[in-house]
Amino acid sequence: MDESPRKEPDINIDLVKEWVREAGQIALGYFNRVEGTRKPDRTLVSDADYAIEELLTGYVRTTYPSHGIVGEEGTNEIHGEYTWTIDPLDGTRAFLSGLPVWGISIGLLWKGRPWAGVFHLPLLDDWYHSAHPAKGAFWNDQPIHCPPPDGWDEDSLLLIPADAHLQYDISFPGIMRAMGSAAAHLCYAARGSALAVFLANPGIWDVAAGAAILRAAGGGIRYLAGPEVLAGEQLGESPHLDPLLAGHPTTIDRLRPHIKPRVSS
Amino acid sequence: MDESPRKEPDINIDLVKEWVREAGQIALGYFNRVEGTRKPDRTLVSDADYAIEELLTGYVRTTYPSHGIVGEEGTNEIHGEYTWTIDPLDGTRAFLSGLPVWGISIGLLWKGRPWAGVFHLPLLDDWYHSAHPAKGAFWNDQPIHCPPPDGWDEDSLLLIPADAHLQYDISFPGIMRAMGSAAAHLCYAARGSALAVFLANPGIWDVAAGAAILRAAGGGIRYLAGPEVLAGEQLGESPHLDPLLAGHPTTIDRLRPHIKPRVSS
Repeated sequence: MDESPRKEPDINIDLVKEWVREAGQIALGYFNRVEGTRKPDRTLVSDADYAIEELLTGYVRTTYPSHGIVGEEGTNEIHGEYTWTIDPLDGTRAFLSGLPVWGISIGLLWKGRPWAGVFHLPLLDDWYHSAHPAKGAFWNDQPIHCPPPDGWDEDSLLLIPADAHLQYDISFPGIMRAMGSAAAHLCYAARGSALAVFLANPGIWDVAAGAAILRAAGGGIRYLAGPEVLAGEQLGESPHLDPLLAGHPTTIDRLRPHIKPRVSS
Repeated sequence: MDESPRKEPDINIDLVKEWVREAGQIALGYFNRVEGTRKPDRTLVSDADYAIEELLTGYVRTTYPSHGIVGEEGTNEIHGEYTWTIDPLDGTRAFLSGLPVWGISIGLLWKGRPWAGVFHLPLLDDWYHSAHPAKGAFWNDQPIHCPPPDGWDEDSLLLIPADAHLQYDISFPGIMRAMGSAAAHLCYAARGSALAVFLANPGIWDVAAGAAILRAAGGGIRYLAGPEVLAGEQLGESPHLDPLLAGHPTTIDRLRPHIKPRVSS
């Protein structure tokens, strides 16, 4: 740990990637061999999620004992300026269905702000990371950039939740996909494969790593309702955030009026 | 070639898989290194599509010289009872965006009916095949089955095209995904990972292999408008089919009224 007066987090991102690599091996060991159960909030969970959260929280506690940790599967230890967020399997439903887009997401918040993160898709051996907001974002160790949009057209891609149609009317002239993982969606926007991402009901663990990566790549993340997102006050209250839009800031502003809560039918 | 009086196709599916494996290596060589251009019908194509169609049509002509071939990128040689359908990259748009769900699809129609097929997702090293309608369907050489549904719920998965929202209103109480490839969607239904598949504007090359695999797994494929699909008369006319539904026949019948052309807005 860097204990210098400058209090910016100074983390060893290569070490974090080693933890995540081990988590990915655990996930592959369970893939197509485990069934899910439903949590009280109706989302799915499996033994794989619990095993990976236990692994990663253990590494964080040992390596950064003064830091807090919030995990999707129950870890909630908040103290001080640094909080790790762990989504042991982002895309549990895709994972349990044998679909390919799911992964391990670990982020670091500093004063409630996404600071660094790693996201890994084990089946594809795909890696995204950012170690510092000013030091860039990387896909398989190559720098990535969220390109400023020059409008949108029939090929422009908006990534949405698989259940968005139940609650929202989205009018978008391009294409829309739901691939399985919110973190993957944010990373696809960070590298310019998608124009933007809509997240209807994200947990802090779904977005902290992806938001750090997206911001380091030049993108932004805002509430659908307007303001800048992810102030620290979310921590300690509900880890669930209001609906979000992510992508280049210009795109977000243009997209906002195209996504509307459904009038109940 | 089997020239016995029984005229059922007798193909060497392992040989076809070898062709497809070589095609997959070509695709991976182009992945993230090629740009697309737009065809007159507004769909995308790349040098990878052309290279793979040339490879596969060459192997078919050499190995089964009496058979016809229809390919997405222009091959149109129809004669006799046997027709191979080639989609060199099913999911070209996903491929060109660097997304993971795309693959090589090669099917065999006998008298216009899907008889056999291979679908391969190179990035995932995932394989689906069926060599004969009565001899089962396989995912990575393990038998797969399209399960009879016991209703649907919030986790039931309907796979749709990424541009379905532009033309259709779909009311479905579960989740919906657009992963990138129609053939992959059909294979996901064949193994029970998805409840059903909607195909809005399929080409014969998009569906022949996947339909053979799905039917051998116990599923069905029908027009959205009602009747059984893929009679031979489509060949020689337009290779594009009317909108389709695929899955277990009971599910298809239940799903049909939930998908309606949009009233222009």
